[in-house]
Amino acid sequence: MASTPIDLDTLNEMLHDCPFHQVLGLNIESTDDATDTLVMRLHFDERISRAEGTGQHHGGVIASLIDIAGDFALIWQLGHGVPTINFRTDYLRPGINTDLIAHARVRKIGRTVSVCDIDVYSEEGKLLAIGRGTYATAAG
Amino acid sequence: MASTPIDLDTLNEMLHDCPFHQVLGLNIESTDDATDTLVMRLHFDERISRAEGTGQHHGGVIASLIDIAGDFALIWQLGHGVPTINFRTDYLRPGINTDLIAHARVRKIGRTVSVCDIDVYSEEGKLLAIGRGTYATAAG
Amino acid sequence: MASTPIDLDTLNEMLHDCPFHQVLGLNIESTDDATDTLVMRLHFDERISRAEGTGQHHGGVIASLIDIAGDFALIWQLGHGVPTINFRTDYLRPGINTDLIAHARVRKIGRTVSVCDIDVYSEEGKLLAIGRGTYATAAG
Amino acid sequence: MASTPIDLDTLNEMLHDCPFHQVLGLNIESTDDATDTLVMRLHFDERISRAEGTGQHHGGVIASLIDIAGDFALIWQLGHGVPTINFRTDYLRPGINTDLIAHARVRKIGRTVSVCDIDVYSEEGKLLAIGRGTYATAAG
Repeated sequence: MASTPIDLDTLNEMLHDCPFHQVLGLNIESTDDATDTLVMRLHFDERISRAEGTGQHHGGVIASLIDIAGDFALIWQLGHGVPTINFRTDYLRPGINTDLIAHARVRKIGRTVSVCDIDVYSEEGKLLAIGRGTYATAAG
Repeated sequence: MASTPIDLDTLNEMLHDCPFHQVLGLNIESTDDATDTLVMRLHFDERISRAEGTGQHHGGVIASLIDIAGDFALIWQLGHGVPTINFRTDYLRPGINTDLIAHARVRKIGRTVSVCDIDVYSEEGKLLAIGRGTYATAAG
Repeated sequence: MASTPIDLDTLNEMLHDCPFHQVLGLNIESTDDATDTLVMRLHFDERISRAEGTGQHHGGVIASLIDIAGDFALIWQLGHGVPTINFRTDYLRPGINTDLIAHARVRKIGRTVSVCDIDVYSEEGKLLAIGRGTYATAAG
Repeated sequence: MASTPIDLDTLNEMLHDCPFHQVLGLNIESTDDATDTLVMRLHFDERISRAEGTGQHHGGVIASLIDIAGDFALIWQLGHGVPTINFRTDYLRPGINTDLIAHARVRKIGRTVSVCDIDVYSEEGKLLAIGRGTYATAAG
């Protein structure tokens, strides 16, 4: 959609330049122009789990991944940061001892607001959670 | 609403028995039967900030606080854990160099689902973010 | 919040100048500066019910009331129309053979987006549904 | 997903047996097992427009369509009615003088709650609005 999308290395530099993103262990794996989709991975770590020994990510970690993946799908397309206005998180199924793979798809690029859908999968491709976020494009 | 609500010390023990809650630095400060409201504080820490030197909490941290505060308002009233079904986070204003104070109010206790509203304030009482969550009461 | 809020008669003229609002049977009853709240009533009518003989409003009618009440709370304060960006509707309890009374409270007036909370009550004051909407202030 | 999905004629009989659905002018056009998707059409009518002469559907009409289409996608798969717990509506672009075509896709069938995504298109295939709803499967 944008004329000069940002390349993957630059996106990951921007992603990692944030203390909380390092706590979460995030990495952008790919971007796909054909589907306006960015893929972000979150590594499982006991430190950010729901409870010790469960192998389950904390819900707040999943919600954070949703917010951040949608945000970076727009950074990728627009070339600048966009504050989140609001977002919804739906937890569908638990994932155990697995990285989380978020597919963030741009649904609308607008002058003042943009919208992304974010599907979160386990490594085996099970749909664990879904998110939908609105971002302030005008503020960028 | 419940016959045997859990006391504050027990609630904080349950809260702290989770690795991610320790990363966030959470504490339950009070519960109020008259308004069905629980107050939870999140201490500011550079490690979970939006970007170094900004003094601002990361949005994912605020969303996590919203989810957890609503969850514990229900744990307080029901006496057992309740999985989140979905929740919405709205960011209203930035807060700088401040703890976050979440007021989680129970709006409905149902047999299968319950609903909470969560308002997040700065230490000076500025409204920074609002959340609304639905929780699976039946699963408890 | 605004310097020149619109008076009740003018608001109701604007409200009634819409075919769908006449189908719904809407009326603004009051506005309160102290709480930034506007009260809108929707009359029960069999034509817009969930099913004949139930005495229950259709869910889409309740969602419409939520969207419109939030919209008019902002029209009241800003003096011009504001398109809805998105909104959430939560159904809490059924209401039978009752008008619906929506209390729309402004939570944020922003340059680009504004946010309202809408609580929907029965005539006896039972909380039936709650809504939260984001509106495009910049577009006005 | 279900063993005995309901056929199209029966679904439309159930759909039309509701006063408000007749006000909206709804019809189910197709169901697709491969994608778990139901398609519902809403005919444009001046009576349910945003304002006379605009050719635009009222936002509440679009939200109602979203709620109802998601509901009937689950009725189709489960064989019985399911009350809406909550849903989100995002308005993306205006549609003028066009029927609305809702594609409701089942994202999760659960014992207590189920989740649908609903995309609303113009007749030319422009994406006008998106919705996401949670429904109480257990209550059926």
